[in-house]
Amino acid sequence: MTAPTRVTVWNENVHETTQPEIAEIYPRGIHGAVAEGLLELLGDDVIVRTATLADPEHGLTEEVLAETDVLIWWGHTAHDRVADEVVDRVHRHVLAGMGLVVLHSGHFSKPFIRLMGTTCSLEWRNDGDREVIWTVAPSHPIAAGIAMPLVIDHHETYGEFFDVPTPDEVVFVSAFEGGEAFRSGMTFTRGRGRIFYFSPGDQNYPIYHHPQICRVLANAAGWAHNRSDRRVPEVAKRRSGWFLPES
Amino acid sequence: MTAPTRVTVWNENVHETTQPEIAEIYPRGIHGAVAEGLLELLGDDVIVRTATLADPEHGLTEEVLAETDVLIWWGHTAHDRVADEVVDRVHRHVLAGMGLVVLHSGHFSKPFIRLMGTTCSLEWRNDGDREVIWTVAPSHPIAAGIAMPLVIDHHETYGEFFDVPTPDEVVFVSAFEGGEAFRSGMTFTRGRGRIFYFSPGDQNYPIYHHPQICRVLANAAGWAHNRSDRRVPEVAKRRSGWFLPES
Amino acid sequence: MTAPTRVTVWNENVHETTQPEIAEIYPRGIHGAVAEGLLELLGDDVIVRTATLADPEHGLTEEVLAETDVLIWWGHTAHDRVADEVVDRVHRHVLAGMGLVVLHSGHFSKPFIRLMGTTCSLEWRNDGDREVIWTVAPSHPIAAGIAMPLVIDHHETYGEFFDVPTPDEVVFVSAFEGGEAFRSGMTFTRGRGRIFYFSPGDQNYPIYHHPQICRVLANAAGWAHNRSDRRVPEVAKRRSGWFLPES
Amino acid sequence: MTAPTRVTVWNENVHETTQPEIAEIYPRGIHGAVAEGLLELLGDDVIVRTATLADPEHGLTEEVLAETDVLIWWGHTAHDRVADEVVDRVHRHVLAGMGLVVLHSGHFSKPFIRLMGTTCSLEWRNDGDREVIWTVAPSHPIAAGIAMPLVIDHHETYGEFFDVPTPDEVVFVSAFEGGEAFRSGMTFTRGRGRIFYFSPGDQNYPIYHHPQICRVLANAAGWAHNRSDRRVPEVAKRRSGWFLPES
Repeated sequence: MTAPTRVTVWNENVHETTQPEIAEIYPRGIHGAVAEGLLELLGDDVIVRTATLADPEHGLTEEVLAETDVLIWWGHTAHDRVADEVVDRVHRHVLAGMGLVVLHSGHFSKPFIRLMGTTCSLEWRNDGDREVIWTVAPSHPIAAGIAMPLVIDHHETYGEFFDVPTPDEVVFVSAFEGGEAFRSGMTFTRGRGRIFYFSPGDQNYPIYHHPQICRVLANAAGWAHNRSDRRVPEVAKRRSGWFLPES
Repeated sequence: MTAPTRVTVWNENVHETTQPEIAEIYPRGIHGAVAEGLLELLGDDVIVRTATLADPEHGLTEEVLAETDVLIWWGHTAHDRVADEVVDRVHRHVLAGMGLVVLHSGHFSKPFIRLMGTTCSLEWRNDGDREVIWTVAPSHPIAAGIAMPLVIDHHETYGEFFDVPTPDEVVFVSAFEGGEAFRSGMTFTRGRGRIFYFSPGDQNYPIYHHPQICRVLANAAGWAHNRSDRRVPEVAKRRSGWFLPES
Repeated sequence: MTAPTRVTVWNENVHETTQPEIAEIYPRGIHGAVAEGLLELLGDDVIVRTATLADPEHGLTEEVLAETDVLIWWGHTAHDRVADEVVDRVHRHVLAGMGLVVLHSGHFSKPFIRLMGTTCSLEWRNDGDREVIWTVAPSHPIAAGIAMPLVIDHHETYGEFFDVPTPDEVVFVSAFEGGEAFRSGMTFTRGRGRIFYFSPGDQNYPIYHHPQICRVLANAAGWAHNRSDRRVPEVAKRRSGWFLPES
Repeated sequence: MTAPTRVTVWNENVHETTQPEIAEIYPRGIHGAVAEGLLELLGDDVIVRTATLADPEHGLTEEVLAETDVLIWWGHTAHDRVADEVVDRVHRHVLAGMGLVVLHSGHFSKPFIRLMGTTCSLEWRNDGDREVIWTVAPSHPIAAGIAMPLVIDHHETYGEFFDVPTPDEVVFVSAFEGGEAFRSGMTFTRGRGRIFYFSPGDQNYPIYHHPQICRVLANAAGWAHNRSDRRVPEVAKRRSGWFLPES
């Protein structure tokens, strides 16, 4: 028996609590929609909890992260309000082996920028273009069962150059009506942590209710779950208090 | 419930049937030892069959390959006796999504050379050096549970330059007593097929009785098992009779 | 002083000699246009010759290839008429260190398929869509001086899945009006040979008269020129007559 | 005419000024030895300056970096004494396109750690082992003219796991007498910056007087020199004062 994947879905949860039109799309928050999708698709293979910016320590205490195999991250308007102490903690846990799935505008989140080492900037405009998502790594576990192509009728447009390091793998590439192309699904390895960035979906569109998008996230949770032991190198621990487990 | 991985272990089986000293190391053949290791470690998660050069069509009929999720390949002295028709068939199935794990001297096998497109040559000498295997991708599923380092007391030495294309991932790097270094575990993607090359072990050493080596092979079988649908691109089928399924 | 790059531009040259409307676009052949572009941009840094299918040995004798640093290949309708003996020769020289730039429909050429080990198939349609080419590796030498984006007003559409191995680097990604995305510029290493695939341009469009496309080809010639010594591994030579230099 | 590469060799320069036995090996400092090697091998193709920790702003002012195509970095015992303001500046210039060559114990330097996003830790011991360096990417420009293998008679031992992200390319792999293997030459891309990490050489050994090591550094300077325009993405500039050029 394989142990289930313990997923924590983190959401800034600001749009949903301050903008009625977003709350209408995501009445239980983006985190709620993502969690429901995972539970529906993965059943007993997943244990899901959620956490938001407003929770104490943003809901990402040492205890929570220690029990999290994969952290899913959605943020947009309040990146700066995430406490550096929590960012340190997330960073440390990713390097030790916790998986991380970064969604959409999470490209500008503090943990992602720190892990990438680049500006993580990209081009964007919001005109409701059709996004067509093409699988360019059809044998990748994250692409299993995904339509070729996967069409999102209306979405915010993200464009290159997306300033991230050379990815380990490009899984998806998107084309937008206006002519933009974008590497919309990419994997990275940092320490023992497996990271997947996936550019859909914006808060203005019901992306996370789309069954195929849920399928990508479910696949990504399985892929990012590092089933080896989780630890930072001893050398790194010796050198820096930053890497010491919090007591 | 996840379906078990159907593995076919192919072995040339020439050394074991012609050299008593090798038969002593591998009384049930290298294929037998590999199969036993998989069964012991994976239990119900694997269905194993074996096939050898001497079998009709080398045991690799269209039917067998169609029911094989991952093919493990060991060959050394009789690469040239593998029928081109069977090589075509293996190649086609790998491109369609069958996993392939190529072991040791299988680097010079016909299917591997065709899939790589290079000479696949390397340097070697057989002096029973100690081989020390280091994991350089600790979050890779193939490295799960593998000691750091994994020490093989005596083995044939393989050395660089190993003339294969840039791998997708380098998982293991070995150092030998004589000073050689070797990329001993590497992944490749070809079509929808996931390929792992692993350089241990030579027929003169009881490598495949080593529990950690068995663990690598069990991990590799899981990793190489593409759970998406299996098919060659329609365009490729239209263009070439070679890609048509045999009738 | 750096020695100039000796480029051989190979073109099937069938469309231009049989279809007046193509001859009008390329009066000196696609090879002529490419050669002119290289000379204009690289001046004394390049020595260019051309060769075509109709030449004895397709113009690719042992002597020519031995004096070629980078071979540029355009073919479309006559891939099957390229002699296997010449394909062997090209393959051997690439593995030994000759650079190779494969253009557009050359994805189905014999040398490229042999080097890749896959079907090299892709999706296509010819509706004169606008192609927008985005640089996703802005520090890559092949992208130096290329507009972001580079727009081709009308072109044949190529679409994913493009069945090539995981590339070393994705340099360009294209989006087409109809919604297709395509990895339009990719590098590969095979043996000591450096390979660049670039999907523009089709014979029906004046792609190779576009100054920016010429710039990509000039950059690619420089990048693919391996300035180390050129040779196949000794082991490979010993094993196979195929790798012996022709006498 | 190609413009020469402007290299700044940065050295902490602490061992040489405080330990007579190190000063004996490097009477003009490690920076002096590296600079001399570059000048001897590259002649008019390079313009070299040096900078050290003791210089005002460590010799790395905005003006100096703006005129630097490739920064070479050696540090060991005084990483913590490098001012964060200078680290910010170096980081910004790398992302904008300045090349960076990080040597040996520079793996723990602040700029490298920030660019990698990982702990950058590794295993080590100093027993004067023989290090044998193998080229695993023989067509890479950094490997041009390098012996196969390149033997360093005595050196500090570095061992895996080296906690850096998956590199773009592994160029060199080393084996040490004691059984360690190490990815001793690796490339990374961050923003528009091209980065090469090279693990030789320790201050206790005359590594940078070795002609072949000088050749690697000369090759690396050429490779890391991004000849495209140098800039950070506009989006990144708008978002963060950190990316604004200093006035």
